[in-house]
Amino acid sequence: MIKVGIVGATGYAGEELVRILMQHPQSEIINLTSQSYVGKSYNEIYQNFEGICNHKCEEEDIDKLSEEADVIFLALPHGIASKKVNPSILNNTKVIDLGADFRIKDVNVYEQWYNTEHFSPELLDQAVYGLCEIKRDQIKQSNLIANPGCYTTCSILSLYPLMKENLIDEDSIIVDAKSGVSGAGRALSLGIHYIECTESTKAYKIASHRHTPEIEQELSEAYQKDIKISFTPHLVPMNRGILATCYGKLKEQLSWEDVMDIYKKYYEKEQFIRLLNKGIYPETRWVKGSNYCDIGFSLDERTGRIIVIGAIDNLVKGAAGQAVQNMNILFGLEENTGLNQIPMFP
Amino acid sequence: MIKVGIVGATGYAGEELVRILMQHPQSEIINLTSQSYVGKSYNEIYQNFEGICNHKCEEEDIDKLSEEADVIFLALPHGIASKKVNPSILNNTKVIDLGADFRIKDVNVYEQWYNTEHFSPELLDQAVYGLCEIKRDQIKQSNLIANPGCYTTCSILSLYPLMKENLIDEDSIIVDAKSGVSGAGRALSLGIHYIECTESTKAYKIASHRHTPEIEQELSEAYQKDIKISFTPHLVPMNRGILATCYGKLKEQLSWEDVMDIYKKYYEKEQFIRLLNKGIYPETRWVKGSNYCDIGFSLDERTGRIIVIGAIDNLVKGAAGQAVQNMNILFGLEENTGLNQIPMFP
Amino acid sequence: MIKVGIVGATGYAGEELVRILMQHPQSEIINLTSQSYVGKSYNEIYQNFEGICNHKCEEEDIDKLSEEADVIFLALPHGIASKKVNPSILNNTKVIDLGADFRIKDVNVYEQWYNTEHFSPELLDQAVYGLCEIKRDQIKQSNLIANPGCYTTCSILSLYPLMKENLIDEDSIIVDAKSGVSGAGRALSLGIHYIECTESTKAYKIASHRHTPEIEQELSEAYQKDIKISFTPHLVPMNRGILATCYGKLKEQLSWEDVMDIYKKYYEKEQFIRLLNKGIYPETRWVKGSNYCDIGFSLDERTGRIIVIGAIDNLVKGAAGQAVQNMNILFGLEENTGLNQIPMFP
Amino acid sequence: MIKVGIVGATGYAGEELVRILMQHPQSEIINLTSQSYVGKSYNEIYQNFEGICNHKCEEEDIDKLSEEADVIFLALPHGIASKKVNPSILNNTKVIDLGADFRIKDVNVYEQWYNTEHFSPELLDQAVYGLCEIKRDQIKQSNLIANPGCYTTCSILSLYPLMKENLIDEDSIIVDAKSGVSGAGRALSLGIHYIECTESTKAYKIASHRHTPEIEQELSEAYQKDIKISFTPHLVPMNRGILATCYGKLKEQLSWEDVMDIYKKYYEKEQFIRLLNKGIYPETRWVKGSNYCDIGFSLDERTGRIIVIGAIDNLVKGAAGQAVQNMNILFGLEENTGLNQIPMFP
Repeated sequence: MIKVGIVGATGYAGEELVRILMQHPQSEIINLTSQSYVGKSYNEIYQNFEGICNHKCEEEDIDKLSEEADVIFLALPHGIASKKVNPSILNNTKVIDLGADFRIKDVNVYEQWYNTEHFSPELLDQAVYGLCEIKRDQIKQSNLIANPGCYTTCSILSLYPLMKENLIDEDSIIVDAKSGVSGAGRALSLGIHYIECTESTKAYKIASHRHTPEIEQELSEAYQKDIKISFTPHLVPMNRGILATCYGKLKEQLSWEDVMDIYKKYYEKEQFIRLLNKGIYPETRWVKGSNYCDIGFSLDERTGRIIVIGAIDNLVKGAAGQAVQNMNILFGLEENTGLNQIPMFP
Repeated sequence: MIKVGIVGATGYAGEELVRILMQHPQSEIINLTSQSYVGKSYNEIYQNFEGICNHKCEEEDIDKLSEEADVIFLALPHGIASKKVNPSILNNTKVIDLGADFRIKDVNVYEQWYNTEHFSPELLDQAVYGLCEIKRDQIKQSNLIANPGCYTTCSILSLYPLMKENLIDEDSIIVDAKSGVSGAGRALSLGIHYIECTESTKAYKIASHRHTPEIEQELSEAYQKDIKISFTPHLVPMNRGILATCYGKLKEQLSWEDVMDIYKKYYEKEQFIRLLNKGIYPETRWVKGSNYCDIGFSLDERTGRIIVIGAIDNLVKGAAGQAVQNMNILFGLEENTGLNQIPMFP
Repeated sequence: MIKVGIVGATGYAGEELVRILMQHPQSEIINLTSQSYVGKSYNEIYQNFEGICNHKCEEEDIDKLSEEADVIFLALPHGIASKKVNPSILNNTKVIDLGADFRIKDVNVYEQWYNTEHFSPELLDQAVYGLCEIKRDQIKQSNLIANPGCYTTCSILSLYPLMKENLIDEDSIIVDAKSGVSGAGRALSLGIHYIECTESTKAYKIASHRHTPEIEQELSEAYQKDIKISFTPHLVPMNRGILATCYGKLKEQLSWEDVMDIYKKYYEKEQFIRLLNKGIYPETRWVKGSNYCDIGFSLDERTGRIIVIGAIDNLVKGAAGQAVQNMNILFGLEENTGLNQIPMFP
Repeated sequence: MIKVGIVGATGYAGEELVRILMQHPQSEIINLTSQSYVGKSYNEIYQNFEGICNHKCEEEDIDKLSEEADVIFLALPHGIASKKVNPSILNNTKVIDLGADFRIKDVNVYEQWYNTEHFSPELLDQAVYGLCEIKRDQIKQSNLIANPGCYTTCSILSLYPLMKENLIDEDSIIVDAKSGVSGAGRALSLGIHYIECTESTKAYKIASHRHTPEIEQELSEAYQKDIKISFTPHLVPMNRGILATCYGKLKEQLSWEDVMDIYKKYYEKEQFIRLLNKGIYPETRWVKGSNYCDIGFSLDERTGRIIVIGAIDNLVKGAAGQAVQNMNILFGLEENTGLNQIPMFP
């Protein structure tokens, strides 16, 4: 059994992590830490765990934890992980960080977009961006995984084959993304009150959302050239789910079948990516509670654009599920171990 | 492996059954039938099954199916199962009926409330009301299980210990229940359009809902005397979940602890019933996607009433989950086989 | 023009008050005060008022305000109004208090249920409970109106004729009420986060909600005898609306038409009460944005109970709308002045 | 009083029209027709009208109606209005068509996108596209108004000043729009069942939605050159509201203030267009129930794009409200007569 510690277990991503790991056949949670709920039983915080998990939430002591745990998941606000992780911890254990601190390779870009200091830039080199379908081989060899953001996972997976094959005008890329409210986290905030976000849709952090440089970094690497995109996140009244509507101008005319062949080249063997048939498109309800990323696309001959649509569950493939997928890779397990949930509808 | 056929696999209860059974380690679905979607792949009807289940939906032929299947689940509108099931089928296989036809023991009561003829009253004697926690022993020996209704499961489990122990004034019982919209099924209907039921709450079928005689039958049996209750179902804008708020006058003064002892007497060993601590009450979100029935209660000293609150997921413990629990009992498996899902929140 | 001041203008009831009063042909808002947003323009707090109301929110100075305003609305947490209101203010102006402080006539009952001291019990005598349809004559002569609570308005109006006519067993009354989330106010609170209350239903403050003594006080007065009821509020995922499902045992057998005659006796001329035809029941969507209280009922012959269902918009008839109705009465205007909104559906 | 007939009064746009017109000081509804509900009282179809409107729905006889009504509103599925309207009707009365039949000037474009014959192409010349802010002068002189679509109203108003001033690369325009479910109408359809669309977001009719040529026609006219855009509608789980996120590459570098000056040039005096301050963006909740179109924008210097966001209530400014605004123009009334509703929040 893999001994697991979760630092920051009481946010929504942390809770999903606990839920998945408790049903994972090869993992054992040995430690749950929380900033706000030290001493409380997990089932008192999340009543769905009544009779299932009454672990007491402990104060975080990651150094000590690193001596006992085979892997530590960090689910913390940005800026904290880079303070906590250090070489000695990484010597003892593996770390999968669900936050942003180790995702951006260029520390200046990180500090500019996140408006904060990075406290361990020296670790950035050994951190691997944990987008499993794309970085599998590097993940295997690392002990510090930067689990991707929710918007980014969905956006990158949707566009990756096109970028890798150099098929899109580099300055034509727009990602218009829609997210459920759980992506905003559990900290008290007026904007995520029921009354303030039900029956409404809004764009936010227009042209300034922190997932932008993360998407650009990975697409640039695929494209082998630095690119910039426009990324607009939207909040829609649902609890889970991200839909990314991605636009790009094709450099050459391609048929739907041509494009599908390209996507199959990269994803056909991926068990968590489902390429949808012509005329079928992703909807967030079809991936809810699962680790799937559904992808469909349409060619707009009138404008020469391709519109690729991706959908994930932001808490699973966009956070906890992918983190466990990373754990599976790190420990040489089948990648879908504990991640076989059929999407729950309704 | 238990060979399973599902007749009526494309309603919401049918779909949940497919979802649970495909993740059940001992069952194999050999046949899915549908009235509306014959010839269609299951993943075309429910896109969450993309890449998971592409069974073609077949025309129903229950006689033939009974020769191949170890168990047949029926998820049909009322009045149909009683036409289809016959002794020869029950000779060949076991039947778990998710509909109402075999729940009511008194054929006159059935025909009056359902306003339809019963086509096989002679089978009512051998049918067992499949409320697992209460009828376990009889279920084991039967091959025709009448899987309880959603409202009824929640209402009966909430009140059973009090009735069994003769603690409540028999003419004081009121069940005020609230259901999510999936309980209304998938057939086209204006009333369950998004626009018509979001942002609204209503009572319906007041003093006339068909689950009333079912609740009365089982509570009367527990109470050893015929009782009548007032039952008011409500539709609330959520997809899954039932909350039953049950009222009764206590015959004698009891403390919270006294009552808890009584509930523990009946439910302490039940893995799918969670008795909540003092001051903690069920909410439908905490059981979503699981087979749990959460129960909490409060004593209103000012009025001498007890208020018992139960919550279930109407599609799981209120339909497909309990049906699988019945299957597990019928086949001598651990009752929770394939039913260990931790409730999904959010 | 009636000069109006609103103390506590930035909660949901306050905002609805501003919205209604700005469309009221005879009122002029001269002052908006807020605890949290002093100095901010109203349209910065509530963006729907962009281009409509850019009043700056001021610090509360009710004594000064009383010299300028013809009427002051208080929309404050309980315990504050009883500190602020005093005879000199009431000498200068009229006060309509949307809070609880002046609703309960018995100061001991208030202090017990609200668990706080009452700071001006000497004013309770002159305060009138502002349930317009029932206290119209007294309201006219008062200058301190205790605007009723949302649950209470709906519950009392639903049961009043039956109580007044002595038709119900006094110890048989149960009100099972369902409210949208706006009733919980705008103060930061985890429980009203979108994620925490969407897709779920719960009961809360079971047998202990503070609207209980308020309902009992008014129903007792109608019944001419002290009665106790069981009241259970529920939170359902919608923004506006209250549905009260009220149960009582009839003392004698009555037909639907008999009961309707009784309701007509009290309500036929009321323009804000709509009595629904046989078989038609209230739904919260049909009163949204309006000052209506819809009432329908069913007789359950099997149990001898009547089930009366009432629906209001909690922010209008349950708060701001009724407050304006009270203002209209106080100033001798037509009671529906500024309150003619047709319910908005969808 | 303006005598009004409404043909197709029982869809959602029709119902909103009735609601607005009944509160309009200068209009009198003389006739409501319906295909599905002939002979039914309006309040039986829409219970919010209980006690307010018990007009019987009549069979449609537009020729006869044209002799009595000063104006006829048509709220019909496409393809029907072009069959019904004829010169003799237009001789008798004015027609405001909420459908698509008279919006597209080029009959070939209409027939191609709508996949149906146009039955009165000879009337297209005299029809005026009723986007009030832009076509006011022509509207005044017409008796056949093609009321714009919901998506189109929001998209065109958002982009019009930029196109008119020739500031955007013509092949860079993308409109990514999000709509509430009421836009889909009231006809029975599985896809708009509560269960099927709550808690989910999807794109639909990608690169093929019928509002595309309508947007292109009007933007091309503004731009003085034929342009093509990519338009992607999305369905989000809310009842009302459209948010259009519009992207374009600026031909030259402009500051936020420059752009605001341009928008002010066109819209400063428009009472139904609200230009939002820097950093403030539209959200659908802030326009609900009103005739406003809120517009905000951001400049993405990194990519040279402008992102303009517009929000309307699809049933008001996107349908019934704009239709009444057109009526007001046609009859020489103040444009905001009967349209002064403050947006209702929550």
